[in-house]
Amino acid sequence: MIISTDRAKRPTDFAHEPTPIGGGFCPFCVGNEAKTPPEILAYRGNGSGPNAPGWIVRVVPNKFPALGIEGELNRQGEGLFDKMNGIGAHEVIIETPEHEQTLASMPDRRVEDVLWAFRDRMLDLKKDKRFRYILIFKNHGAPAGASLEHAHSQLIALPIVPKRVIEEVEGCKNYFSYKERCIYCDIIRQELESGVRVITESADFVTLAPYAPRFPFEAKILPKQHESAFENSPSHLYENLAKALKNLLVRMEVVLEKPAYNFVLHTSPVPEANNDYYHWHIEVMPKLTKVAGFEWGTGFYINPTPPEEAAKFLREAAI
Amino acid sequence: MIISTDRAKRPTDFAHEPTPIGGGFCPFCVGNEAKTPPEILAYRGNGSGPNAPGWIVRVVPNKFPALGIEGELNRQGEGLFDKMNGIGAHEVIIETPEHEQTLASMPDRRVEDVLWAFRDRMLDLKKDKRFRYILIFKNHGAPAGASLEHAHSQLIALPIVPKRVIEEVEGCKNYFSYKERCIYCDIIRQELESGVRVITESADFVTLAPYAPRFPFEAKILPKQHESAFENSPSHLYENLAKALKNLLVRMEVVLEKPAYNFVLHTSPVPEANNDYYHWHIEVMPKLTKVAGFEWGTGFYINPTPPEEAAKFLREAAI
Repeated sequence: MIISTDRAKRPTDFAHEPTPIGGGFCPFCVGNEAKTPPEILAYRGNGSGPNAPGWIVRVVPNKFPALGIEGELNRQGEGLFDKMNGIGAHEVIIETPEHEQTLASMPDRRVEDVLWAFRDRMLDLKKDKRFRYILIFKNHGAPAGASLEHAHSQLIALPIVPKRVIEEVEGCKNYFSYKERCIYCDIIRQELESGVRVITESADFVTLAPYAPRFPFEAKILPKQHESAFENSPSHLYENLAKALKNLLVRMEVVLEKPAYNFVLHTSPVPEANNDYYHWHIEVMPKLTKVAGFEWGTGFYINPTPPEEAAKFLREAAI
Repeated sequence: MIISTDRAKRPTDFAHEPTPIGGGFCPFCVGNEAKTPPEILAYRGNGSGPNAPGWIVRVVPNKFPALGIEGELNRQGEGLFDKMNGIGAHEVIIETPEHEQTLASMPDRRVEDVLWAFRDRMLDLKKDKRFRYILIFKNHGAPAGASLEHAHSQLIALPIVPKRVIEEVEGCKNYFSYKERCIYCDIIRQELESGVRVITESADFVTLAPYAPRFPFEAKILPKQHESAFENSPSHLYENLAKALKNLLVRMEVVLEKPAYNFVLHTSPVPEANNDYYHWHIEVMPKLTKVAGFEWGTGFYINPTPPEEAAKFLREAAI
């Protein structure tokens, strides 16, 4: 658990209703570059200078970071308890200069630029030896936790491998030590054969409703060729991933009427980026149900929609 | 993950906004007993018959259960995947006949009745040898996942010990095998000594903001005497737990302006109900923040409110 005192809130700061995130001033819109911290990376047209209009994707530090970039981890005990400083990078990828655009409405080429920005930032942050995991994720819409409407994703570089990632990677390692095959490669083979949970397939990617989805209409996009780390993919993959991601988001917009959603890029921890057992992928979770007492108490999830039905709806969406 | 086909939903069944849960017909109100499945247990005044008015607490099967009570587990493989039937009991504890009452507004004695209903149902379900864990939880308010407004909690009996419970119990076992002391007994001692995270203390219970809370204003109520299973507590404890629980909920209502919340009863798995290493407790989580991409990707939680601040606000609440 991360206590983020930079964001410390008094009880009355917690809104009772989902914060309305439309309207008002937007710090991510073109022309408002001075309202964010100075940019770390931007893809821009010729002749435009930093922190000025002319960009198509722009990466800036999060103005209210969950973690600070300076200092030492300083692991220590406090009686029975353990703590360390919250060291890490927290960046925002502004996906488009235009407030009305989303990954589902942008041209494929612009979605691809966002993916290249993910990759460029990951490669850069991997040079900082303190970081062991780089997480890319997106909160779209207030119910999914977005506090700004303008299309953006986030990057957090962490000095420890998160619990959730360790569990997943360990599971893959155990399978590999038993079978000498990547479990995701095996799943892809089995799913393509049966077809019932396949949403779309292209030359490089398959989009699936997973066998045991926690949430209704949850989907995974996996590269068909084994690759453990997103940032090490051959360059033509980003073009085709952009197409697969946009296609899935458009299908979800049609079937689920523009849902709020989260996506999370699952990739190998930095110290073991190249391996035979883990297989990077993107997980997209539309926010349709609420996590409640049962889920908190058990770690199990109750999902009212079987994945075969979800896949059928998304596969047959009129797009 | 539990696929609950009895509740199977088409995409358009998912509401975009929190379902308004006020107004309209309420199947839990006194006089509407025929609108629920027949009661399993009720505490009633003399002379009133089953499934008729006169009750103060009433337990009924969930009309849309996540799990079915009949049948065998039938564990099996499906290619690479594993599945089993969703066997279990899913019951609703209707906490009051009156629609306007809540655990925070009811007399202490009525809150105690609810706790006795939890206990009675647990003792009864433990006779069914299929069940290895009995989970009691509450979703209060639509943002916390409640679909009905009328005060109620839920019980789910499961044929397996949930992942989340295994992790917690294993942690306690490891600590015990190292120290030969219960970790919660040690935490209670340390917290009472420092006092900074203590919300209230009575003869039998302490209410704490935990050292590493996932959510702002999360709180735990723990019995001061070691006891591994809720249902084995001596009877005076239920009276005092009712006071502690109601007191905490009233404080949260004042400080957080009647928040939605979840609570979860953490108790020992059925096969190891009596032990030296686990210590039952109640966890109360006001629903103030949204779980988003970062939490799904890492299993870590970003909490803007340090527990010492949350404890101070709740301790000093004008109740």
